[in-house]
Amino acid sequence: MIRVGIVGYGNVGRGAEAAVLQSEDMVLSGVFTRRPPESVRPLRSDTPVLPVSLLMERGAEADVLLLCGGSATDLPVQTPELARRYCVVDTFDTHARIPEHFAAVDASAREGGTAAIISTGWDPGLFSVMRLLGTAILPQGAGDTFWGPGVSQGHSDAVRRIDGVADARQYTIPVQKTVNAVRRGEGGFTAREKHTRDVYVVLKEGADPQKVAQQIVTMPNYFDAYDTTVNFISAEEMAAEHSAMPHGGFVIRSGKLGEERQYASLMEFKLELDSNPMFTGSVMAAFGRACHRLHEQGKTGCFTAFDVPLGLLSPLSAEDLRSKLL
Amino acid sequence: MIRVGIVGYGNVGRGAEAAVLQSEDMVLSGVFTRRPPESVRPLRSDTPVLPVSLLMERGAEADVLLLCGGSATDLPVQTPELARRYCVVDTFDTHARIPEHFAAVDASAREGGTAAIISTGWDPGLFSVMRLLGTAILPQGAGDTFWGPGVSQGHSDAVRRIDGVADARQYTIPVQKTVNAVRRGEGGFTAREKHTRDVYVVLKEGADPQKVAQQIVTMPNYFDAYDTTVNFISAEEMAAEHSAMPHGGFVIRSGKLGEERQYASLMEFKLELDSNPMFTGSVMAAFGRACHRLHEQGKTGCFTAFDVPLGLLSPLSAEDLRSKLL
Repeated sequence: MIRVGIVGYGNVGRGAEAAVLQSEDMVLSGVFTRRPPESVRPLRSDTPVLPVSLLMERGAEADVLLLCGGSATDLPVQTPELARRYCVVDTFDTHARIPEHFAAVDASAREGGTAAIISTGWDPGLFSVMRLLGTAILPQGAGDTFWGPGVSQGHSDAVRRIDGVADARQYTIPVQKTVNAVRRGEGGFTAREKHTRDVYVVLKEGADPQKVAQQIVTMPNYFDAYDTTVNFISAEEMAAEHSAMPHGGFVIRSGKLGEERQYASLMEFKLELDSNPMFTGSVMAAFGRACHRLHEQGKTGCFTAFDVPLGLLSPLSAEDLRSKLL
Repeated sequence: MIRVGIVGYGNVGRGAEAAVLQSEDMVLSGVFTRRPPESVRPLRSDTPVLPVSLLMERGAEADVLLLCGGSATDLPVQTPELARRYCVVDTFDTHARIPEHFAAVDASAREGGTAAIISTGWDPGLFSVMRLLGTAILPQGAGDTFWGPGVSQGHSDAVRRIDGVADARQYTIPVQKTVNAVRRGEGGFTAREKHTRDVYVVLKEGADPQKVAQQIVTMPNYFDAYDTTVNFISAEEMAAEHSAMPHGGFVIRSGKLGEERQYASLMEFKLELDSNPMFTGSVMAAFGRACHRLHEQGKTGCFTAFDVPLGLLSPLSAEDLRSKLL
């Protein structure tokens, strides 16, 4: 049995817990949290909840840790620190800072003789693998990644920080016309052509809806490059209709093969998820299995989904995989 | 530059040639054929055409060979034989005999100090990877693979062997109702429920259409477990409308995540190919790149798509992959 620890217990941490419980070759070492352990209610009442400080102080009996914190401030510190002592898997998703994060984690893991897999989940993660397959197999072609329809936590949080906003939920929606054009092999689309953004806002008492809407649609990076629709709703409507965290998306690659005569080829990978964090937790658990196995094979250092033989994600042996799934 | 040899020059061999020509990091060592070399016309007039006997007699300057023969009689002999001396990639697709083929190729490659990747292409190959991801990430779920709409060479050949048949083409067509049910998480469908088969036949003069049709629809393994439609057409119609080799299909996995509350998750990978052999050749070329790199890393023996870090399929470096595609 692979002993798995979960570090950080938000939505993704709960997803990781559920995934470990579904895995017949895994046992939960515990949930490690910065909050008072007694204030945390895990999905199963027998899941141990422990202080995160324990991990570096006394150590914990875990073959691999699933780091379920955020990319902004948690993971840049936690992943390199914990990789000195444990095999770790994270979902670091600040694309621009991946090279720097990789280098820091790689140094720690080599120093500690551990294995680490960063940037797992579905994007980065599964979608990265699909982009790689698309460009490697159809080098002369075009492709694109679309996200949604689904809730973007980052954009929802950005709206919540606006003065006068009590609560907010942001849905990212792919533009079907552009999706179809990418399937036909067209490329070079702008952010505005690819996705629209729908925002649902509960205002604080006395807030000016026009002013809030204006601040949303002009917000740099988050909304100014998109066509955004703002809807004001009641707190009751928010709770009743917008509490789920569905997401998904697709990776499309369209290319031409052949010499004089050209043949169109289309590769497409799609996800439709009722719960983004549940699925993310499940992908992390599978990469946790792979991380532990890489380490058992004597491998140390930092890896990504590109570096891991994907057979290691499955509990089946290489022989069983060949006879059952190949 | 990776020097690539192509062994066997049918439709897949031509696909491999086109793919190598599209790859900026590859150069063609030549096409190796059992036919008189002067009778073979490669896609590009400057592609060297050489006798296959040369490979074992004098040797050839190739870093990797793409073996484009058939699984019935060519590959069970060729892959182990050539793996003694070269890094090789094949598309062995007789599912029941994969364990035995793997063992034979593994022994040869270890003996020769080479690397071999068997059963590449899209199924087995890409679709195998998708089945693996589906079962590893959604262990509690159902899934299935559908093929088509597209031409099945094996089934077309089987019909051509019937007395009275001058030419034939068989299309495999997924049953949409079943596809939708699998997306909803239902499983356990029979062959008949999953696909229908459409056959187009040109009769020899004097042949009895009723007798031929009866022989087709009752043919064991190939047609008796399916609902098959037989259409008789002229040789002109066959040439005009059925000379292409389109194919494709999809791998679906639908699962539930969570503990008390369950969340549906759907993963789906789809291919739509104007030319099955062109795409197969392109997948082989990418695995050829990976095979050469595994060997450069000092790895020997037999591998499948499950054992190869997929980053090796891309001409990009690990650093570039992380910054551009992760």
